[in-house]
Amino acid sequence: MDKLKILMIICDGIGDRPTAELKNRTPLQYAKRDNLDRFAREGICGIMDPIGVGIRPGSDTAHLSLLGYDPNEVYTGRGPFEAAGLNVDVRPGDVAFRCNFITVDEKLKVVDRRAGRIKSGTHELAKSIDGMEIDGVKILFKEGVEHRGVLVFRGKALSPYVTDTDPHAEGVMIKKAKALAEAANITASVLNEFIARSYKILNDHEVNIKRMKVGKKPANMIVTRGAGIVPHTKNIKERYGLRGTCVTGIPLIKGICRTVGMDAVEVDGATGGVDTDMTAKVKAAVRALKTYDFVLLNIKAPDIYGHDGDAFGKVKCIEKIDKALGILKDECKETIIALTADHSTPVIVGDHSGDPVPIAIIGKGVRIDDVKNFDEISVAKGGLGRIKGLDLMPLLLDLANRSKKFGA
Amino acid sequence: MDKLKILMIICDGIGDRPTAELKNRTPLQYAKRDNLDRFAREGICGIMDPIGVGIRPGSDTAHLSLLGYDPNEVYTGRGPFEAAGLNVDVRPGDVAFRCNFITVDEKLKVVDRRAGRIKSGTHELAKSIDGMEIDGVKILFKEGVEHRGVLVFRGKALSPYVTDTDPHAEGVMIKKAKALAEAANITASVLNEFIARSYKILNDHEVNIKRMKVGKKPANMIVTRGAGIVPHTKNIKERYGLRGTCVTGIPLIKGICRTVGMDAVEVDGATGGVDTDMTAKVKAAVRALKTYDFVLLNIKAPDIYGHDGDAFGKVKCIEKIDKALGILKDECKETIIALTADHSTPVIVGDHSGDPVPIAIIGKGVRIDDVKNFDEISVAKGGLGRIKGLDLMPLLLDLANRSKKFGA
Repeated sequence: MDKLKILMIICDGIGDRPTAELKNRTPLQYAKRDNLDRFAREGICGIMDPIGVGIRPGSDTAHLSLLGYDPNEVYTGRGPFEAAGLNVDVRPGDVAFRCNFITVDEKLKVVDRRAGRIKSGTHELAKSIDGMEIDGVKILFKEGVEHRGVLVFRGKALSPYVTDTDPHAEGVMIKKAKALAEAANITASVLNEFIARSYKILNDHEVNIKRMKVGKKPANMIVTRGAGIVPHTKNIKERYGLRGTCVTGIPLIKGICRTVGMDAVEVDGATGGVDTDMTAKVKAAVRALKTYDFVLLNIKAPDIYGHDGDAFGKVKCIEKIDKALGILKDECKETIIALTADHSTPVIVGDHSGDPVPIAIIGKGVRIDDVKNFDEISVAKGGLGRIKGLDLMPLLLDLANRSKKFGA
Repeated sequence: MDKLKILMIICDGIGDRPTAELKNRTPLQYAKRDNLDRFAREGICGIMDPIGVGIRPGSDTAHLSLLGYDPNEVYTGRGPFEAAGLNVDVRPGDVAFRCNFITVDEKLKVVDRRAGRIKSGTHELAKSIDGMEIDGVKILFKEGVEHRGVLVFRGKALSPYVTDTDPHAEGVMIKKAKALAEAANITASVLNEFIARSYKILNDHEVNIKRMKVGKKPANMIVTRGAGIVPHTKNIKERYGLRGTCVTGIPLIKGICRTVGMDAVEVDGATGGVDTDMTAKVKAAVRALKTYDFVLLNIKAPDIYGHDGDAFGKVKCIEKIDKALGILKDECKETIIALTADHSTPVIVGDHSGDPVPIAIIGKGVRIDDVKNFDEISVAKGGLGRIKGLDLMPLLLDLANRSKKFGA
């Protein structure tokens, strides 16, 4: 039996709950779905708990789980995945933080948590505090979008169990990092020293002096949150023998994929927003399948409408996805395709929920059940039953004739 | 999204197997079910293995599991839960035993395992052996119903791994407690010493002297069984942020709920028997929801008919439950309600079985599947699929918008 390729389509946050606005249907139930229903009709369906029954996943923990990495084992915080998303070459054992450039006064009281919504100059500011070494810990800093950035510590005996220095409020003092476990003492003291040193550098930096001259707030302080350690794990090539890549506009998702050894395809028009060019992304995924064994395609927009509580927006977005997926029919004959989500983002909740997500799998040799519709209720009667996110990769590897026999 | 309250209705032992008497239907399939079917029609259904597939649960282990406490981790024996059910303030690390007052002759041979079915005087007898201290172990004793009681050891280095001193037979000697592990040596020796001392006290006790004068058997010995340790666990307030209570006529169930930090509502007419006032219990649960976030309502009667092998009795009992649940429709709009059982008690088995139990969940935002009937077979096609008892609390917390996000 030939090995098939694998395409995992993650419609971010597409699962939902019934909404009065939609006559007590979910957006999926309400939307016109030609191509989504084709997946249901021509494949095997089920529901999936991305992490566990009733567990409310983040996008990061859910994607790890769907890629076969148990977030209970590998996830301590978002920092490493944000850093990898910004193309920082994080390595196992590194501790990474999400950061903001902020504005503080001379007493270190927070004046602006976004440093006057700084748009330019952060690259120069980041460069000025990147590359320090404190107590044997090598320190990397890289700017992100607007006021955001990432901080990476590399060295021995680091721990992610330190408190945020970000006070998450204005008009208050920034916080000292505290160790939450004895093993984190070094990390906390290096972090406090880094923050003290970087304040001196940033406060006198040319970029900030210029900003102040034109009445803008200086980006003169770094605050940290979301500390996490880069796990020691086998990558997907070692675990599954797969060459993988992702198609996504979201740096965090790119970061997660990179952390498990995948590449990230850049797509013009893939913004990660509601205005994203979905057809371009689907085409990019199809192209990527020519050179990769495994492609993860994340379509972020449904999640955004869920967070906004916009039921009709989510319906229209689902109909756009439905249209964009039309080209897959003829293009992916030698591919096992899973159509699913990382979590539900119900419009009545306005945030992720622990409700299971629908899943349909099509491709050569897949058992075909009698589910006709791709919605949260219909798929629950399908041939897959109720599975967990961690089941997905083994399931797809086996359908793609790539699993190893256990025993003889 | 507003937080909702949670009502868990446990129809004890309601699950069953097909019975020839009922034309090869289960009592649930056979019974007239207006309100039970409303749960199925207006909610999401499934089947649930209280502990695991094919695992035959006790009421105690099943309730622990449904409350989110893995009995494989927290349950070593029934003693602690019986003690808590009798309002003994058991604490983590305590070892507790179920006891009988029995009658022994001068050679310590068992004459009567129920001490002549003693009905009065046990309070005074219990008092006389309560409060000892042996080798640094504080000892509590409290009488239960009729010849029953509980014994609690409090101290360092206690272990539940000791053999029963109850020989579970008459005409034989009571047994010495033996340690089943080295760590239980102290517990076994303290237990043997307690039994020797209490025999001396009980044998000469005024209550027993009076009993003998009127030809009744003395309650002159204590035997023990069901040793268990009170687990070191977070209570439901710490774990789930819930203020909880239970409505049940069964001391053991009260004890389990208390052990995880819940209160117990007293209800006139809630006997825990087949004559219980079910409407009063349902009303008490509705009242409790005004001041508590979480209410567990246990209705014991179906289990009793199952143990008795009384198919038509179980059918009638189900119809009584069906009627009693009618008031919930209008009273619980801001509540997620789960209707389920702790285990099946098939009439053809006359005991608990490992068959999964039916479950239906209704409330704001719950996905509604197309199951119309609340019986063992119909619900298996529902939107929940097959879940485990340990999944229930996370699931209900999420539907009640009380779950915490894992990741970002």
